[in-house]
Amino acid sequence: MRIEQQPLVVPSPTDLHQQVSEMIDWLATYGGQGEHGDHGVTRTLYSPAWQAAQSALEHCMREGGLIPRYDDVGNLFGRLSGTEQDGRVILTGSHLDTVVDGGKYDGAYGIIASFIAVRYLKEHYGTPRRSIEVVSLCEEEGSRFPMTYWGSGSMTGIRDMQQVEGIADAEGISFREAMGQAGFGMGIHPSPRRDDLECFIELHVEQGEVLEREGQSIGLVSHIVGQRRYEVTVSGESNHAGTTPMEWRRDALLTAAELIRLVGEWAKRQGDGLVATVGRMEIHPNVGNVIAREVTFSLDVRHPDAEVIRQFCEALFIEWKKIAAAQGTTLTYHKWMDEDPVAMSETLASKAQMILARQGISHRRMTSGAGHDSQVFGTYCPTSLLFVPSHLGISHSPREFTGTDELVCGVRLLIELLYELAY
Amino acid sequence: MRIEQQPLVVPSPTDLHQQVSEMIDWLATYGGQGEHGDHGVTRTLYSPAWQAAQSALEHCMREGGLIPRYDDVGNLFGRLSGTEQDGRVILTGSHLDTVVDGGKYDGAYGIIASFIAVRYLKEHYGTPRRSIEVVSLCEEEGSRFPMTYWGSGSMTGIRDMQQVEGIADAEGISFREAMGQAGFGMGIHPSPRRDDLECFIELHVEQGEVLEREGQSIGLVSHIVGQRRYEVTVSGESNHAGTTPMEWRRDALLTAAELIRLVGEWAKRQGDGLVATVGRMEIHPNVGNVIAREVTFSLDVRHPDAEVIRQFCEALFIEWKKIAAAQGTTLTYHKWMDEDPVAMSETLASKAQMILARQGISHRRMTSGAGHDSQVFGTYCPTSLLFVPSHLGISHSPREFTGTDELVCGVRLLIELLYELAY
Repeated sequence: MRIEQQPLVVPSPTDLHQQVSEMIDWLATYGGQGEHGDHGVTRTLYSPAWQAAQSALEHCMREGGLIPRYDDVGNLFGRLSGTEQDGRVILTGSHLDTVVDGGKYDGAYGIIASFIAVRYLKEHYGTPRRSIEVVSLCEEEGSRFPMTYWGSGSMTGIRDMQQVEGIADAEGISFREAMGQAGFGMGIHPSPRRDDLECFIELHVEQGEVLEREGQSIGLVSHIVGQRRYEVTVSGESNHAGTTPMEWRRDALLTAAELIRLVGEWAKRQGDGLVATVGRMEIHPNVGNVIAREVTFSLDVRHPDAEVIRQFCEALFIEWKKIAAAQGTTLTYHKWMDEDPVAMSETLASKAQMILARQGISHRRMTSGAGHDSQVFGTYCPTSLLFVPSHLGISHSPREFTGTDELVCGVRLLIELLYELAY
Repeated sequence: MRIEQQPLVVPSPTDLHQQVSEMIDWLATYGGQGEHGDHGVTRTLYSPAWQAAQSALEHCMREGGLIPRYDDVGNLFGRLSGTEQDGRVILTGSHLDTVVDGGKYDGAYGIIASFIAVRYLKEHYGTPRRSIEVVSLCEEEGSRFPMTYWGSGSMTGIRDMQQVEGIADAEGISFREAMGQAGFGMGIHPSPRRDDLECFIELHVEQGEVLEREGQSIGLVSHIVGQRRYEVTVSGESNHAGTTPMEWRRDALLTAAELIRLVGEWAKRQGDGLVATVGRMEIHPNVGNVIAREVTFSLDVRHPDAEVIRQFCEALFIEWKKIAAAQGTTLTYHKWMDEDPVAMSETLASKAQMILARQGISHRRMTSGAGHDSQVFGTYCPTSLLFVPSHLGISHSPREFTGTDELVCGVRLLIELLYELAY
């Protein structure tokens, strides 16, 4: 502990370049294809690659002067204890798991950036006032089991063991069994529930093109958007494509086309950042010379204001029903996801903004259209989600890419932010 | 031979009812599921069920006083030789094969009706002037191999052995091999090519709802419509459904929806009997939270006037390209089928119409929106295609149905028509 605070010296970008680049490539070898995982990374919850990566990070943390420990769902924490007695912890990190054939940055970057930042602070400024923990969250993507945010959710209490009873992966291995194979869920490690978190700070790749197109280095996220997801079914009547006059048809695909077209028109017209997507369709019987009997499709609507989503959907369905009725087809829909937007901490965002202004780093406020662990922590403690650019917005792909210079911008911001909060 | 023609006595509907009904049920047992094939008939080219059916029909023909013979592609003919020396033949029948899980009437009815009619004429009026042959055409549907109209086409010359080189069924059995297994294609039977056909008359179920809805018993087909079939591809760009603003999207599914909607609007607006159908679509990657990168879909356009089809498609593609360009997606299309309409014989249709007027049977002129063997014969010799109603227009299904009374109407028409042409 220092009696008077030393002014912070942030490492130059050049100083950080190699260690950031090397650690990204190193972590990508766990579950990676090709050199440095350049041909894709597949590191799913409790898999051998996942276990090896957590072990390796545990070793890293210890080498870096942090005290590592697991909780009983497999989250890994590297702790730098502070001098203050209240025991509250600044948590920083991201998720270790990937989608199948994902990239090297999604989740991994946040863990690596947090680790490098905290290691730097420890090496140069010793013990903080406030405790800091770097976290490698066990799971976020839902890529092995039908379960998302297992790491963050178990810590805040929105996830529990009951929710994973009876779920299994594509090979039929149950969640419980997989946990056990990795050494978790057996009471060896402490329960994941936390009540000592001061805040959560997550660096993540944008998975969109806004920063790159607008030429900014950092995105300060104000909200994680709310989203609703529906399954929509249009029912008509199959008939022969040659012998059925147009006026007697009840063509489910024609109606679906009309409905989907309207989604695009209305979403574009909305102009306030709302996004609406139909990404998936199934047509039955899906034969060229048979009029479609039934079409199901997905609808995904997102906006930072839940009321805006509600109004959009309500008006859309009223218009949709008119269209289907006019075409003699029937429409049913089922809402299977309804997540409220989550606001990030304005205080933390402002601190970050001032740091970036001082550093002369270009930045902007923005919303996150994708879900993150930050949305789970965000309803639980002050949370800051900070984006670095994604090249061409590519994500969930081996082609996912962020230049090291941009990754380093994030680390330098985090070093200053953590110093300000903890030292 | 009779010196003076006897006036024709057509059997009463009651007289025909049982034999028509029984023969439909009997033929349906070949390849049929359930009693009388009530749960579906699957009788594909050269299969064991197909062979058994041809054999059984051969026997039937012999018992009925017709001379049976095969040609070398497996068509079966039952001949009633006439007294005239020119050797020209009135051919009447339909196809023996079915689609997978088809019904009892499609094709089978035409064979059965022709057989019953000719057998009646022979029994009561003996030898005709002109030779008549009942034909059970080996194949029409293309349901086992990617080959349609193999029976009629081999007779008229639009099909030949070169076209079936290298094609195989879903199990990998080659066409040649399957032919050989059934005893054909080896020169045992005469070549299928014919140059002695006076005309071709085919009774068939409508496979549409016009006759049933309009309450008529017989449809006199004036044209088999022309048809064009396209494969259309829209290309855009995959992106994250949450993080990609609407204005930056190149959504292949949104464009496809717009294009498909237009097909329906224009076809309905056309109002002249044109039908246009999009029955099949594939979306890539077809994931709910990913903007579609590529969509392919089928387009099927039919009308009795080839020029109408041409103009419709030309105008459609011009408008389509504008739509795609406005949305930043690209459009390509490939025409893989372009069949001209085929006119049926007006002379034969008029004769049929006068017979029906005398019989007091309701009828109408109409086009056929589906392809038939009559379209192959129709460019080769005067041809008459005569429809009986299809209940609810259902076809290519175990639920295909036509009441026996209506089947009998067709037989009574055919008896008079053949008598008029051959006796």
